[in-house]
Amino acid sequence: MPKIVDHDARRRLIIRSVWSLIGRRGLAAVTMRELAAEAGFANGGLAPYFRDKDEILLAAFQYACEATEARLEPAVAERGGLAALRGLCHELMPLDDTRLLEARVVVAFWDRALCDPRMSSAHEVTTDRWRTLMHCCLAQARAYGEITTSTSDEDIVETLFAVAAGFQVHAVLTPTTTTAERQLQVLEALLTSYA
Amino acid sequence: MPKIVDHDARRRLIIRSVWSLIGRRGLAAVTMRELAAEAGFANGGLAPYFRDKDEILLAAFQYACEATEARLEPAVAERGGLAALRGLCHELMPLDDTRLLEARVVVAFWDRALCDPRMSSAHEVTTDRWRTLMHCCLAQARAYGEITTSTSDEDIVETLFAVAAGFQVHAVLTPTTTTAERQLQVLEALLTSYA
Repeated sequence: MPKIVDHDARRRLIIRSVWSLIGRRGLAAVTMRELAAEAGFANGGLAPYFRDKDEILLAAFQYACEATEARLEPAVAERGGLAALRGLCHELMPLDDTRLLEARVVVAFWDRALCDPRMSSAHEVTTDRWRTLMHCCLAQARAYGEITTSTSDEDIVETLFAVAAGFQVHAVLTPTTTTAERQLQVLEALLTSYA
Repeated sequence: MPKIVDHDARRRLIIRSVWSLIGRRGLAAVTMRELAAEAGFANGGLAPYFRDKDEILLAAFQYACEATEARLEPAVAERGGLAALRGLCHELMPLDDTRLLEARVVVAFWDRALCDPRMSSAHEVTTDRWRTLMHCCLAQARAYGEITTSTSDEDIVETLFAVAAGFQVHAVLTPTTTTAERQLQVLEALLTSYA
């Protein structure tokens, strides 16, 4: 089925090229016409691939999640326990240009997910998976004696997950305060407090 | 100057009535026409007050900040130290319907602030003020001996501030996981770890 394969490749090509436009200008400020131009299509040329901006944003969010998960897996599989938990947090935190750009797309996505059940369910499925991964690492870290705090696993996951989301906002909006160094220090202080 | 006073009152009336529309549907999904209808104006009737959606969103954000600060002040002034720090965090966290609605407006604002210098500077001014308030409470709490951790004040403020922002996202997107009870438990575990 060569046509379908081509279609999928085309969609991914579009996502990659509109990605930086959303990151630069924010989804709200961007029109379908500009998205087409950025991807090298004529006006209206995106229609066979994406019906509207929401479909593009959903695909961009899923692309960001896949990229994050591709980075998460070795961090979790190769290490284990506390080291895996730390690695997992690092991949969710906007510590470099790639993850800062992901953060911009994710923040745009949150706003739309608030009002679109399809987007909020995509968000929930992904975050559920990441929470479950965190719980696995945490259980391992407890088994290894690396984490012994009386704070519940649910509270620890909720804390680390909230901190990562907060960093995604603050690192792009107040980058001189929420530096990569500061983010790493905050994470280490938290992990130490769970020892 | 009765005309100016009237103008201001009118603007506040519009903000209050579009507030719930943004909260219900998200800014991206809402048109100027719908915003006018929600506020009881004819189509185009908002023009003398707000030129475009961005101006309305900026005003809505500032309205949310003023409401938050009106709640913050007594919490900080009446108590002091750790109790004030806790009260301040509670006002930033989406613990009830009012603060959940504020969170929805704030999340919509973040996306636009990523690409609009006027919005990002309004965001920075406000968050700077809240960070400063947190530092004051924290210094008092240290003076009272309520907080003795070796974690730096900068790291503590960054943690609490990130957690509050993360909760604003998660309490509206995954409300069954990020309940008010869970948020309060996470905050107490953090404050206890700083004792």
